[in-house]
Amino acid sequence: MILDKLKMIPLGGLGEFGMNCMALRWQDDIIVIDAGLMFPEEELLGVDIVVPDISYLTENRDKVRAILLTHGHEDHIGGLPWILSELNVPVYGTEFTLAYVEGKLEEHRLLDDADLNEMIPGKRFTLGPFSILPIRVTHSLVDCVALAIHTPVGVILHTGDFKVDLSPPDNKPFDLHAFAELGKQGVLALLQDSTNVDRSGYTPSERAVRPRLDEIFGQAKKKLFFSCFSSSIHRIRLAMELAHQHGRKVAIIGRSLDNSTEIAQDLGYLDLPQGLIINPGHIKDHPANKLCIMISGTQGEPMSALSRAAVNNHKFAHIDAGDTVLMSSRVIPGNEKSIYRVIDHLERRDAKVIYDDGASGLIHVSGHGSQEELRLMINLVRPKFFIPVHGDYRHLKRHVELASSMGVVEKAILLEDGDVLEFDKNSATKTGKITVGRVCIDSGGVANDVVEDLVIRDRKHLSEDGIVLPIIAINKRTGLLENAPEIVMRGMAVAEEGLIPEARQVVQRTLDNSSPEEKADYGVIKEKIRNDLKRYIQKSTSRRPLIMPVILEI
Amino acid sequence: MILDKLKMIPLGGLGEFGMNCMALRWQDDIIVIDAGLMFPEEELLGVDIVVPDISYLTENRDKVRAILLTHGHEDHIGGLPWILSELNVPVYGTEFTLAYVEGKLEEHRLLDDADLNEMIPGKRFTLGPFSILPIRVTHSLVDCVALAIHTPVGVILHTGDFKVDLSPPDNKPFDLHAFAELGKQGVLALLQDSTNVDRSGYTPSERAVRPRLDEIFGQAKKKLFFSCFSSSIHRIRLAMELAHQHGRKVAIIGRSLDNSTEIAQDLGYLDLPQGLIINPGHIKDHPANKLCIMISGTQGEPMSALSRAAVNNHKFAHIDAGDTVLMSSRVIPGNEKSIYRVIDHLERRDAKVIYDDGASGLIHVSGHGSQEELRLMINLVRPKFFIPVHGDYRHLKRHVELASSMGVVEKAILLEDGDVLEFDKNSATKTGKITVGRVCIDSGGVANDVVEDLVIRDRKHLSEDGIVLPIIAINKRTGLLENAPEIVMRGMAVAEEGLIPEARQVVQRTLDNSSPEEKADYGVIKEKIRNDLKRYIQKSTSRRPLIMPVILEI
Repeated sequence: MILDKLKMIPLGGLGEFGMNCMALRWQDDIIVIDAGLMFPEEELLGVDIVVPDISYLTENRDKVRAILLTHGHEDHIGGLPWILSELNVPVYGTEFTLAYVEGKLEEHRLLDDADLNEMIPGKRFTLGPFSILPIRVTHSLVDCVALAIHTPVGVILHTGDFKVDLSPPDNKPFDLHAFAELGKQGVLALLQDSTNVDRSGYTPSERAVRPRLDEIFGQAKKKLFFSCFSSSIHRIRLAMELAHQHGRKVAIIGRSLDNSTEIAQDLGYLDLPQGLIINPGHIKDHPANKLCIMISGTQGEPMSALSRAAVNNHKFAHIDAGDTVLMSSRVIPGNEKSIYRVIDHLERRDAKVIYDDGASGLIHVSGHGSQEELRLMINLVRPKFFIPVHGDYRHLKRHVELASSMGVVEKAILLEDGDVLEFDKNSATKTGKITVGRVCIDSGGVANDVVEDLVIRDRKHLSEDGIVLPIIAINKRTGLLENAPEIVMRGMAVAEEGLIPEARQVVQRTLDNSSPEEKADYGVIKEKIRNDLKRYIQKSTSRRPLIMPVILEI
Repeated sequence: MILDKLKMIPLGGLGEFGMNCMALRWQDDIIVIDAGLMFPEEELLGVDIVVPDISYLTENRDKVRAILLTHGHEDHIGGLPWILSELNVPVYGTEFTLAYVEGKLEEHRLLDDADLNEMIPGKRFTLGPFSILPIRVTHSLVDCVALAIHTPVGVILHTGDFKVDLSPPDNKPFDLHAFAELGKQGVLALLQDSTNVDRSGYTPSERAVRPRLDEIFGQAKKKLFFSCFSSSIHRIRLAMELAHQHGRKVAIIGRSLDNSTEIAQDLGYLDLPQGLIINPGHIKDHPANKLCIMISGTQGEPMSALSRAAVNNHKFAHIDAGDTVLMSSRVIPGNEKSIYRVIDHLERRDAKVIYDDGASGLIHVSGHGSQEELRLMINLVRPKFFIPVHGDYRHLKRHVELASSMGVVEKAILLEDGDVLEFDKNSATKTGKITVGRVCIDSGGVANDVVEDLVIRDRKHLSEDGIVLPIIAINKRTGLLENAPEIVMRGMAVAEEGLIPEARQVVQRTLDNSSPEEKADYGVIKEKIRNDLKRYIQKSTSRRPLIMPVILEI
């Protein structure tokens, strides 16, 4: 008879979107599902990424057997470099997911020491007391899996991110049978993606965007700029197919897009006709109406290729009157202002901008299942316990309500980061709370040739490396700087404060080299100042203070 | 024969949402349409409001005859205190609009010197060479007008904000006949609201929300919190009617809501049954299911009553498990994060939160006309020239496209802030550019008993009053302050820097008096620190530096 309990401990993603990370523990064995990051709130400008506090794992470092990845999105794998540098354990993922992970670990010089293991959908493998079956699901990215984890008390089924796409463009079908089979055998707990719990009905198939996109490709009179998330392999493939059909050459601009395309090509997700892709340097050699330029930056990220092109500050991407810019993505809440600023800049260049404004037709579909798909999964799996994952508190709560109302689940449980939920074969009980939280990280590397180094922004580093506040007063009316930039430093050695005059010049130069449009866009100008000052201070002092530009509009 | 031209010069609102202000000049006479404010972008934390630069008006102060107000929303009247303190000219508005203006001017001790003149829809009046006919339109607020301005070269028709509501709750109909009549007589230029140019179809009537709201009132088991924009008089009236029908007493919480309700009652827009309204202090004396609490703060404003109630920090408004919170408003882009934070806090208190998530039924309708209403107006008026107002660049551009495609207008012109457009009877030509811009203003008064004083944040004041950066390091995990707060001052006299130790204590006290929930909400905590520090510095030095709290999450 088993007296011991299975412990489930979410470290991130249950109470926020992003930094998904969940620990499962049986006696002295721990496995971890996903290792994501999230992007900082605007209030935290000065750090690049936020990852979960993994104290629980480092305190139990001898027990952690592996990290299992459901798919290759940043909110599921982006925290890996940070976690592996603290705790080098084996990592399991599908072929495509591991290709992303490899690139990421290489950037941080962690690849050589990493223990990466491929998992194959449908093929069960064992880690100590756990036996894991990856199950193919569909999503906006390719090669995604749910994980059925057989434990001594029963099966824990984690959906990862999914929608039920019955016609996925890669013809790799959602494995409904595997879920049905598990449902028949009995599932102790289902952990399901809450992202779209507010949406009624079904999410359309990824193929559903094709007609409208085809129309737009057909109507574009001059250059066609196509922007989507760099990991949207299905969408990238579709755009390239359409470009080929409409006789347009494709140039790819943006490092992440380049990287994704290369991986997708290597792994057979993209089969490109000879001569379709041209070098961005050769854009000028082709007629405008024979060009499709794939460009990164759908969310108005200040330093992205699209943002820079929009203010006419990109070497190869020039927006001319009559060009079409198609943003095949959604407006992520919180990014509206940045996105609309980019759109306004594009419109001023007389480009036709097509974005997700509710009136542009179906140019984007979500990768997450809506209510009917969530119900379908619950009905197929018929778990004893139901636990929503991936969402703010209100999403988790709605998802508990949705599951409870179906009469299928014995109990739906609202679990939050840090809660410890203990299972035996018949019960699930919250028994405590462990330390969780958010760790702010600044990626030290600023030049392309520098290995990316991770700096944790905690009290220790703050007092060691200090904080630098460049204060800039810009006259909105004239776009001119009103005074020389001020630099305030705290927690830096006195000797280093001698840097201030030169640091002021660095900021001054950044401003001198920026166009009036850039100066009017605080997001862009702050990010430029931060990057240039970071490079300068790092070079002169090898310090990495937190740099938080303050713009005064006067 | 007239050789002179009519000049049209937008000072604000053509290239941004908010701070609507437009000058019309004939020889030595200038009239101004609207005098709005806008709220600062997040990058400008440290100022309260942004108003248009009125240099053009002050440079021509002897020529400015009047300011005409289309209606009482902040983006149309909020800049008045600032403009009148620079340039005290007669103001014209409808009865209800003037009631709002009076309150606003009184706060700033400008009322006694103000020259306020009522205009009555349908009644023409003359200002120098201009003859003005206010025309009743419908909108989310009451007593709104369009302005038909007869000039020596023809009629300029400014719609103000409008939708074509054929069943307005106050039974004051949209004056379609007046527009048709003008169309027959001939209109030189139509200036039309662009806000909803992206929406197809018609905007529903304000009455359309009644069925769903009635249902929610019927289903609420305990206290019902009702939140809407304080100026949504129709909505407030509807909520009160429903409260009465469902046997609930009404308590009103929030100064702006109180003020609006009082004005609406005085002017006959609210006819309240005896005993319906109770004092917020008496909420506790009534059973939960007999209460409707009208509360301000639909946009998650950090210091609003609803935000404070959500973190259990309001004297009278307590959210208990099972209460219903109905947010009868839209999520304004840019406010998502604040709003969702409030919703998450409410959900944690186990309130049922109903907000505009696309799945809650019709709980809010826009006050602005959609494409078909815009086309209807253009068709009725058939102007020679068409000029979109109220919108970002892309809205103005879309609106030009919409008008151009109808075959009714001779020419649609994209005008931006600062452009000078000159009209004669047959032509409209851009002839130049004047100085425009944004002026950042900090309202000096922080306590309720202090007269609100306006401080302009320009170079001059910045060097005089300086800048104060309180830097707070909060440990997200524990919610505790990691070090004593740091205070950085710039541009303050040395003597005043002696204040730093005490200022640190002020910030420390603010933090000590805040709940962990408040400390986790950077918007709230920044605003509290800013207010407390402002009060302290003003009292000790009579200075009003710019205060910009910096939060480090570590």
